[in-house]
Amino acid sequence: MKIELQKALPAEIEARSMEIIAAELGRTLDPENEAVIKRVIHTSADFDYADNLWFSEHAVQKAAEALKNGASIVTDTQMAKAGINKTALSSLGGEAYCFMADEDVAQAAKRNGTTRAAASMEKAAGLQKPLIFAIGNAPTALVRLCELIEEKKIAPKLVIGVPVGFVNVVESKELLMQAPVPSIVARGRKGGSNVAAAIVNAILYQIAKRP
Amino acid sequence: MKIELQKALPAEIEARSMEIIAAELGRTLDPENEAVIKRVIHTSADFDYADNLWFSEHAVQKAAEALKNGASIVTDTQMAKAGINKTALSSLGGEAYCFMADEDVAQAAKRNGTTRAAASMEKAAGLQKPLIFAIGNAPTALVRLCELIEEKKIAPKLVIGVPVGFVNVVESKELLMQAPVPSIVARGRKGGSNVAAAIVNAILYQIAKRP
Repeated sequence: MKIELQKALPAEIEARSMEIIAAELGRTLDPENEAVIKRVIHTSADFDYADNLWFSEHAVQKAAEALKNGASIVTDTQMAKAGINKTALSSLGGEAYCFMADEDVAQAAKRNGTTRAAASMEKAAGLQKPLIFAIGNAPTALVRLCELIEEKKIAPKLVIGVPVGFVNVVESKELLMQAPVPSIVARGRKGGSNVAAAIVNAILYQIAKRP
Repeated sequence: MKIELQKALPAEIEARSMEIIAAELGRTLDPENEAVIKRVIHTSADFDYADNLWFSEHAVQKAAEALKNGASIVTDTQMAKAGINKTALSSLGGEAYCFMADEDVAQAAKRNGTTRAAASMEKAAGLQKPLIFAIGNAPTALVRLCELIEEKKIAPKLVIGVPVGFVNVVESKELLMQAPVPSIVARGRKGGSNVAAAIVNAILYQIAKRP
C-alpha cells in the first residue's frame, strides 16, 4: 500500500495546519489570545479548546513581557518541561524547572503529608527570580500555588492552570480563576502536560526566534 | 474563596477517576484493550478515544509479552519519553530511547533530505534489541517506520501510531493499520505524545509493579 503525503518542510506543514484550524473554526478569535488557542488545538486536534480556554485580562501580553525580561518556567511534570522549547526560552534568558523528581521534594511531601506536586510548588516559591507556572497535571500543585499566592509568598508572572482529569481538577481551576494573578485556564476536565507546554511555546514564539 | 477537594492519595484519586470513566462510558469495553482505552481517556479527559483507538489482533498481549522479556521503547519526542514510567520499564529490563536531538540524526536528515523524525527511525532500526515504538507526533516517523518494516529492516514488537494533527496524520495511521506488525492506532486526527506515553504505561502497569 502506498499513501500520498504532502511534501513540505515542518514549518510549512505547521502553517497549513494553522490554516485548516482557522478555516474549521469558522469564526475569529480575540487577536490577543488567538496564537495560544490555535497552538493548543494544533497540539491536541481538539476544537473544544476554542471554548474551554479562559484568559485573565492581558494574561498573554503580561507573560510575554515577563519572558522578554528573562522569566523562567516551573512545571509540575517532566513531560511539560520536555515539551517546552528550551532553545527559544534560553535565548530570552529563561530556564525550565521541574522539581517533581527531587529528593528534597519527596522528603518534604512525606514530612508534611502532602503530594510531591504540592511540595514542588513550595520549592519553587524559594526561587528568587520571575516565574511562570505551567501546571498540566496535578490539581494539588495548583491549589498549593494559589495558597502561596494568597499568602504573598510568591507572585507569579503567569499561572497556566490546565490539569486534566476527573477528581479535583475542575475545582482547582475555578480556584485559580479567582486568584489575583495573571492566568490562563482550560475550564472543565481537559488539559494536560502537552497543553501546558503548547501554551508556553505559543507565547514564546511571539517573541523569540524559533530554532 | 475556598474549595472542597476530595482528600485521597494519588492512587485512590486514580481509582476514583477510572470508576467515573467506566460509569460515563456506559458500556463495556473489550477486556483485552480496556486498560489502555481507559488510561488514554484518563490522560486526556477525552471520551473520543473510546471510539478512536484501534488494535491489531492481540496487540496488547503481544506487547506485554515483549515488555516482560525486556523490550525497549523508542519514541519520536522527548515528551513521550518523559511521560513513560521508566522505573516500571527498567524493572522489566527495558530502556526508553528518543534520538530526535542526536547530532548524527540531524546530519543524516540533512544529508538525505528527510525529517529528523524519519532519520531517528533509521537510527532505531540499528538497535539490536526487541523494540516497541511509540509515535505521538511525527507522521514522517510513522511512514518511514512502515517502510523499514516492509523492507524487513526492522520487526517491532508493537507500533503505537498516535501522531496528532491536520496534515499527513490520518494517512500515516492508515498506512500503519495495513502494516504486518502488531499496532495500536488512534484513528483520525487526535493523539499526541501524552497519548503515546499513556498507552505504554497502561501496558506496563499490567505486568510491572508501579513505583
